[in-house]
Amino acid sequence: MTTPLRARAAHAYIESHRKEFLDELFQLLSIPSVSSDSKEKGSVESCARFVRDRLADAGLKAEVFPTGGHPVVYGERLAGAGRPTILVYGHYDVQPPEPLALWRHGPFRPTLEGSDIIARGASDDKGQVYALVCGLEAVFRTGGGKGVNVKVLIEGEEEVGSPSLVPFIRKEHARLKADHVVIADTSQFAKGVPAITYGLRGLVYLEVIVRGPKKDLHSGSYGGAVMNPANALARIIAACQGPFGKVAIPEFYDRVRPLEDWEREEYLKLPFSEEGFRDETGSPRLFGEEGYSTLERKSGRPTFDVNGLVSGFTGEGAKTVLPSEARAKFSMRLVADQKPDEIARLAKDYMREIAPEGVTLEFIDHHGAEPVLVSREGPAVKAAVAAMARAFGREPVFMREGGSIPVVVDFKKELGAESVLIGLGLPDDNLHSPNEKFCVDDFYRGMAVMAEFLEELE
Amino acid sequence: MTTPLRARAAHAYIESHRKEFLDELFQLLSIPSVSSDSKEKGSVESCARFVRDRLADAGLKAEVFPTGGHPVVYGERLAGAGRPTILVYGHYDVQPPEPLALWRHGPFRPTLEGSDIIARGASDDKGQVYALVCGLEAVFRTGGGKGVNVKVLIEGEEEVGSPSLVPFIRKEHARLKADHVVIADTSQFAKGVPAITYGLRGLVYLEVIVRGPKKDLHSGSYGGAVMNPANALARIIAACQGPFGKVAIPEFYDRVRPLEDWEREEYLKLPFSEEGFRDETGSPRLFGEEGYSTLERKSGRPTFDVNGLVSGFTGEGAKTVLPSEARAKFSMRLVADQKPDEIARLAKDYMREIAPEGVTLEFIDHHGAEPVLVSREGPAVKAAVAAMARAFGREPVFMREGGSIPVVVDFKKELGAESVLIGLGLPDDNLHSPNEKFCVDDFYRGMAVMAEFLEELE
Repeated sequence: MTTPLRARAAHAYIESHRKEFLDELFQLLSIPSVSSDSKEKGSVESCARFVRDRLADAGLKAEVFPTGGHPVVYGERLAGAGRPTILVYGHYDVQPPEPLALWRHGPFRPTLEGSDIIARGASDDKGQVYALVCGLEAVFRTGGGKGVNVKVLIEGEEEVGSPSLVPFIRKEHARLKADHVVIADTSQFAKGVPAITYGLRGLVYLEVIVRGPKKDLHSGSYGGAVMNPANALARIIAACQGPFGKVAIPEFYDRVRPLEDWEREEYLKLPFSEEGFRDETGSPRLFGEEGYSTLERKSGRPTFDVNGLVSGFTGEGAKTVLPSEARAKFSMRLVADQKPDEIARLAKDYMREIAPEGVTLEFIDHHGAEPVLVSREGPAVKAAVAAMARAFGREPVFMREGGSIPVVVDFKKELGAESVLIGLGLPDDNLHSPNEKFCVDDFYRGMAVMAEFLEELE
Repeated sequence: MTTPLRARAAHAYIESHRKEFLDELFQLLSIPSVSSDSKEKGSVESCARFVRDRLADAGLKAEVFPTGGHPVVYGERLAGAGRPTILVYGHYDVQPPEPLALWRHGPFRPTLEGSDIIARGASDDKGQVYALVCGLEAVFRTGGGKGVNVKVLIEGEEEVGSPSLVPFIRKEHARLKADHVVIADTSQFAKGVPAITYGLRGLVYLEVIVRGPKKDLHSGSYGGAVMNPANALARIIAACQGPFGKVAIPEFYDRVRPLEDWEREEYLKLPFSEEGFRDETGSPRLFGEEGYSTLERKSGRPTFDVNGLVSGFTGEGAKTVLPSEARAKFSMRLVADQKPDEIARLAKDYMREIAPEGVTLEFIDHHGAEPVLVSREGPAVKAAVAAMARAFGREPVFMREGGSIPVVVDFKKELGAESVLIGLGLPDDNLHSPNEKFCVDDFYRGMAVMAEFLEELE
């Protein structure tokens, strides 16, 4: 592999600015931009301004846009009509740092431990998105990137469900229009195994309330004569899943696109230890749908999981109550081409149909997300493969991820643009947990990926 | 029906002391003898002394016995060896009065509303047991009861599970030895339908903890690859009950004594409205084991009821957690001749057997009680039937009760004596609830029952 000339200048720029870039990231990580904490509203806003200033330094025309919630930072450097347009997406807000006692350093006092940057937001997503921004700077400051329209959108509400993002995209549709979205908010498959995530599972999250008697009854005086809502709930849930985890809701699998041969081959190539995974979960034994590997089950196949149960007496000891209601929160992870609305309807219809007499059901719709499957064939994906190969010294693998990234669906729907998910983090980066980390080498590699990617697109 | 001569004198005594007896009951009800409240320890003790004094006034040799917990009051009036011996049992402690805001009067300021005495403990059990004590007084003070050894045991820990009772019985075994135990701590079948409760359901109360992953996992990243303990719990519970509530645990029914023809006829005679019962529970539809009536299901047949469920995220909204454990408290009501220990073992074995791979089970034994079935043929039961017929002007019905009264089993085991359960209360007396009540007419009828009962036994 040879490094193209122009990117070589960008690489030299990166090399000579390593300390500055890391210092700037540390400044960014020092701002407690916890989007869910109203007390940190000021921090979130100052973080937005910091990001805007850094985009401007990198050579973009940057602005902070107010929204109904936290502001969006947007910057652009346009090459002209007819040129390819990319939209780099990331978020500057972070998860709450609690529990604080488990951090080895203050969550907002970034610290280098060996090659790991320890701080809240190190990997999710400040470190990753900032690597891309530094990569842009390196290209722009060395005279590159002139053939591509570069747009950058960094929002402040990702950790609270991005409520203002779609309204913002709709309002600024013309400004944001792009051919490809580039996102660095996923991870490598494993250390040294760069990955492009091409599949994301969707989600339907529901809650069912099973109601029986109008008040809690004494289980001695009434037991046997009325349907117990907790017993009924257990029966309803049990009927939703077959013995090996296959979902038993009729028509559930009708739209599931089967895994293709190349995908199953790709899965097999991934360095994965079933035993290591079992140890990581602590589960006594791995379990799942027959005919599929663990990796396929957790990312390429749909699921039915109870997320919460509550009914009757849950304190210490015993109380002979026949509860008046029982609740379950449950969610189904979806894969292409399942449709969240349809799956929600199928689940509700089935549960109502199998509910025993003597109870009524009510449903609460929590949220949903469509599954994503990005084609490997697009020019942006090809450019990303080449860029990652050069930056990591190894071809990226293609992988599916079990979770959902709703913005990917939003960009597709609102802008018609598919996303390229470049994973710079590692699977054990402690996202949403104490001692979140990001490998400093991957921080620099991320800059190189961006430089190479722009070069490829030109 | 004619009233025998000696009891007629007792009846006259009751008539002429109606006001005093009611005043004394009001004094008793004014003492907040809440056994579960350590702040009321002094009240519980002064209540014991009050009861002792009243037993002494009634003509018994009475004493307060300290125990490891709250004291037991014991009194006796012996007729001599070879004479029949009864042990009257009751309790002077009461349930906590909370929620206070729902009481129409202070819970310890007894008030007559029409013919109802409103106070905590009015029916459970101060009013009922005190009626029997007044009945004894009426007999003794009019020269009766000389052919029967009368023993009275009134404890102060019934509402907290009677932890000191069995140790006390064992210690004072010789003193307490009796042929029959008389208990007024149940209810009439309905207003004006006096009842002798001859069957009580037993109980096995267990808790199962289903464990999977060592910590809560993200349902997106891990869902489908590990057994979800909440899904597993639902499956386990669902498998314990057939579609109409019949318990599906193997061998569960092996020792169940079928309802006899006379019992089913007795059930049919009871004035019971299915519709009224459904309205009372608020259940959308009555439900239960096929081939049995609602009354039979709730008192004459065993059950499997979940009492509490908890797992994962139970707060408001949604959290995509794959929980590391799920818990259910569940209980089985038993009927003669099921054995609690055996049923507990069968349930645990079955659940372990059907538990899906990928989870482990742990059980907590909460408590158990043996089912009770008292013969209708004993002399005490016959005496009680005659006594109630005279006092109420109507033959009592024989009924089974769905709950458990553990002391009945204790007396049988420790003293070899069967209990006669004379119900003076009403099913809607608001036991353990605000505005507990006891019909003042039934208070006086209870005295008459005691007088007639002693007369019958002599």
